[in-house]
Amino acid sequence: MRQIPFYATHLEGSFWGDMQRISREVTLDAIYDRFAETHRFAALKCDREMQEREGWKPHIFWDSDVAKWIEGLAFALERGRDARLEAKADELIDDMCKNQLENGYYNCFYNLYKTDQRFTTRHEHELYCLGHLIEAAVAYYHATGKDKLMGLVEKYIDLVDRIFRVEQSAGFVTPGHEEIELALIKLYRATGKEKYLTLAKFFLESRGRNDLDIKGYYDWGNSPYAQDHAPIREQTTAEGHSVRAMYLYIAMADLALETGDEALYKACDTILHNVAEKRMYVTGGIGSSHIGEAFTVDYDLQNERAYTETCATLALALFCQRMTRLKPCGLYGDVAELCMYNGSISGVSISGDSFFYENPLSIDLANRDKNPSTKQKDRFPITQRLKVFGCSCCPPNILRFVNSIADFLYTEEGDSLYVHHFMNGTTTLEGKTLRQTTGYPADGKVQLSAPGYGRIFVRVPGWCDSFTASAPYTLQDGYACFEGVSELSFDFHMAPRILVADPAVHENAGRACIAYGPAVYCLEGVDNEGDIFSLALRRDSEFSLTPSDYFRLPVITADGIARRSCGKLYCRPEDIESLPRKLTFIPYYGMENRGETDMMVWIPLI
Amino acid sequence: MRQIPFYATHLEGSFWGDMQRISREVTLDAIYDRFAETHRFAALKCDREMQEREGWKPHIFWDSDVAKWIEGLAFALERGRDARLEAKADELIDDMCKNQLENGYYNCFYNLYKTDQRFTTRHEHELYCLGHLIEAAVAYYHATGKDKLMGLVEKYIDLVDRIFRVEQSAGFVTPGHEEIELALIKLYRATGKEKYLTLAKFFLESRGRNDLDIKGYYDWGNSPYAQDHAPIREQTTAEGHSVRAMYLYIAMADLALETGDEALYKACDTILHNVAEKRMYVTGGIGSSHIGEAFTVDYDLQNERAYTETCATLALALFCQRMTRLKPCGLYGDVAELCMYNGSISGVSISGDSFFYENPLSIDLANRDKNPSTKQKDRFPITQRLKVFGCSCCPPNILRFVNSIADFLYTEEGDSLYVHHFMNGTTTLEGKTLRQTTGYPADGKVQLSAPGYGRIFVRVPGWCDSFTASAPYTLQDGYACFEGVSELSFDFHMAPRILVADPAVHENAGRACIAYGPAVYCLEGVDNEGDIFSLALRRDSEFSLTPSDYFRLPVITADGIARRSCGKLYCRPEDIESLPRKLTFIPYYGMENRGETDMMVWIPLI
Repeated sequence: MRQIPFYATHLEGSFWGDMQRISREVTLDAIYDRFAETHRFAALKCDREMQEREGWKPHIFWDSDVAKWIEGLAFALERGRDARLEAKADELIDDMCKNQLENGYYNCFYNLYKTDQRFTTRHEHELYCLGHLIEAAVAYYHATGKDKLMGLVEKYIDLVDRIFRVEQSAGFVTPGHEEIELALIKLYRATGKEKYLTLAKFFLESRGRNDLDIKGYYDWGNSPYAQDHAPIREQTTAEGHSVRAMYLYIAMADLALETGDEALYKACDTILHNVAEKRMYVTGGIGSSHIGEAFTVDYDLQNERAYTETCATLALALFCQRMTRLKPCGLYGDVAELCMYNGSISGVSISGDSFFYENPLSIDLANRDKNPSTKQKDRFPITQRLKVFGCSCCPPNILRFVNSIADFLYTEEGDSLYVHHFMNGTTTLEGKTLRQTTGYPADGKVQLSAPGYGRIFVRVPGWCDSFTASAPYTLQDGYACFEGVSELSFDFHMAPRILVADPAVHENAGRACIAYGPAVYCLEGVDNEGDIFSLALRRDSEFSLTPSDYFRLPVITADGIARRSCGKLYCRPEDIESLPRKLTFIPYYGMENRGETDMMVWIPLI
Repeated sequence: MRQIPFYATHLEGSFWGDMQRISREVTLDAIYDRFAETHRFAALKCDREMQEREGWKPHIFWDSDVAKWIEGLAFALERGRDARLEAKADELIDDMCKNQLENGYYNCFYNLYKTDQRFTTRHEHELYCLGHLIEAAVAYYHATGKDKLMGLVEKYIDLVDRIFRVEQSAGFVTPGHEEIELALIKLYRATGKEKYLTLAKFFLESRGRNDLDIKGYYDWGNSPYAQDHAPIREQTTAEGHSVRAMYLYIAMADLALETGDEALYKACDTILHNVAEKRMYVTGGIGSSHIGEAFTVDYDLQNERAYTETCATLALALFCQRMTRLKPCGLYGDVAELCMYNGSISGVSISGDSFFYENPLSIDLANRDKNPSTKQKDRFPITQRLKVFGCSCCPPNILRFVNSIADFLYTEEGDSLYVHHFMNGTTTLEGKTLRQTTGYPADGKVQLSAPGYGRIFVRVPGWCDSFTASAPYTLQDGYACFEGVSELSFDFHMAPRILVADPAVHENAGRACIAYGPAVYCLEGVDNEGDIFSLALRRDSEFSLTPSDYFRLPVITADGIARRSCGKLYCRPEDIESLPRKLTFIPYYGMENRGETDMMVWIPLI
């Protein structure tokens, strides 16, 4: 199965075209400026004297922040070069290359500090940083033809290969934070050099098999925290730090794609089912707990305290995209869509310049952190997006995700085309032109022009109860298969739906949420008078839609009630008056964009 | 208003008679043995060499644990002396007296350690310990005529009076943990010595008025934490550490009773309304947050993470009892009843030998602390009672509460008798004999014999929608007033009720609980098949009752449903099958007595 790469597609207007416009016009500079202010770029100069003079010190993972900004830029440059921004990237790359050591090593922290401790401390993110540098190098080279960063990483990898795989002289065997594995496979694909696949395989196959890594890692972590609890083919559940887990699963899927390893595919599929069926928020959010930023147990999906890191949801989408290449299957596309339209892009403001690291499903301002008697507070996610974080992995991750979103669209196999997702745009590849004309996901109408294929498989979104197509089809694993046509139109019937959670999700007992197409909705205080937590949704609600340019998706009005206090703290049910109330729902991803306000996804259903 | 003291009443069988029997037969020895094992008694010998040899060190508040055990014993001895237990108490008192310093000081910790820091550190509980010693001395003297402990505390108080009130040479002005204030008023009542009232007044009036206390107290606490945010008459809400707060309010009410200070009564009443109307669990539990063991903000009443310390609920009951003496009012009795039958005695096992410090309203075993990937866990209350705690204030507090419960029954004013609560027993005082014959709270029938009063006021419980009485009455502030009768019978119609919370209690949206008389009920996994969190209660439920000697209250069966998973994590409401289900509820206070099991008070209501 061959992927049609994102850069073959030009997205125009509509949902993702607009997201990319904001990303280019605002987000690229916003992140750059914040990173500059926080010394992330100055750190690349490896000038200890300057650092001491100015009173700051680099963090061990800053190289990865820089790399992801470069990669995000590179993805944006595929749609059109930009001398101003390229000059910035070139300077960053120059600084890094200047400071690459003779033996190939480069890390803005370890170049200056704890120099005798390189490759000794598993949780110190050196290989994670290298992984992101590799991804940046590949992307920047493809977009610009400039190979300087490629030179740095190839030399650096040679060192890593010797120390880790050949000599096995490092203080650990596999990285504490996965990332280099998927990056090495990407580099292998870009260069055709087998050695990169070999090293990726080494890291992947060693995981969960060696005492050096498993024993004596984090004091507060057990082996599943870093996915060390079993060799990769024997892992069946998503465990531990959710971003690390997803980066591992992506690499496992990539390796399965390269090797045709059926057992590895099966492990990936089993894990993805565990996530989708037991450990995922309705927003595509994963990793419930702030302790270890981790998966916990099946159905443990607390709303107000949801951790659900932006990066984890982005990575789950990418994992699904890789799985789609292995075997098209409706579930993979459905989970990817949940991530794409909900818990990932909730991580960036509509304005494009501020970010959530955590994406809770409920924000209750009255009750949190308000205890006047103590300075120490209970832990909850923040309620307003920030411009930058101390650990600012999420902002540039959104940047690269949005600018390569078209990677999700198409794969080919023989004379078959697979259409996995729906975005308004034109794809030009090897003389072929594909075109989708659609307002998706604001509406479910899609026109597809795809000449030159014998068969066209179109994913029927799992949320869709009924659809019409302009030609006859057969259904197969969540895809409608058309033969011998090149012009198609679909209408995925799109109406607000009420969803409930499995009864095993205890937090959501008696509650429901509203979804429209792939987008999950929420209520905010700013749109709904009074206390939103006193509202309930009628199960026989009618819905009305109001188009919204701001949210790129319609605002939904539903029928509900507002419960009114009788003045007693506890009373009989009949003492509580229920007043009819129109409820206003907005897309979840657009939450908290209009000032700090209460927010709720799961509302009591009556 | 004169209180008829508990020792005038002999409770026979029924609810409290049985609780007192267990308390005497089991709890007294159980606590004694655990305290002995944990060196709390050996500490009184103030033998540093022994401590070093055996490898332990006293805790600053151990004297208070010992004092409360002696006080609880003394209360039990009012029903019959016990040479064996008295010998134990005498030995403890001897040890303390032997170690009282020449100047009157005694503290099992400061006698040996940090001897230059006595009375310098506000949060170190010295005066709190003295307060409990005073209460123990008064009680033990009354029960046995032995005044040795009285001698110790009177000498000690003289020192405290000089240092704190006269010289003002201590490192702080008012105690970090209130207790001595109410104890001094108790001692004043027992001895008639004005100086104790004067010192109590000094501590009470200085609170919230002096910079020495307010500034630089706990790093993590603000002034409301220790009720320092305002002078006592200006406090309007219950703030900070919930036990400290209640002990203060009790002393404020006691002072108002002694002085007739209307402004002080009004402050107490305002605070009690704040608690009852905005900051109290349906179980009478108070203090939602483990951070500071504190009140937070109005309506912040989380169930699974409820802190609701046993001591706080006990103290709220006592605060209500004091308020009843100031002015009989239905609310005071109603709140006291909630505490008496729910969140206080949930702190002791049915067997009488193990204890809860925290009393949550939901225990969900599947989701808590089960994350396999981290050793560090989220914080939840424990799920099974323990024999003893490091901070073991609650067990002996229950002991003294249960053994003096009859303090709640009656007050007199002129020729009027006030009957505030209902317990089966006989009261003999100054030639008068009062008798209640009742199965309360298992049933609502009460026969009262109270010859010799012109008027009898009987509290009509707030939970009671209808009742019959054997004589005509007028209603006044929640009391039925009878004139010129001495034999009365009532039937407070008692049937299971469904209660809901004010919509401002966000956790309970769409949920209800069941109460029967003053008792709140819960569901447990041990009685209800499958996942109790998948159950819901029908609002048109019929109820059936099964008497239970074990719980002393009937077990209730109700109509509900069990929701059955369709196998999808998120689905349409119609995909979830609802099966009719009989639901079994037990009294909340009896939770977690039959092995670790899921527990829920607030169940979805359909």
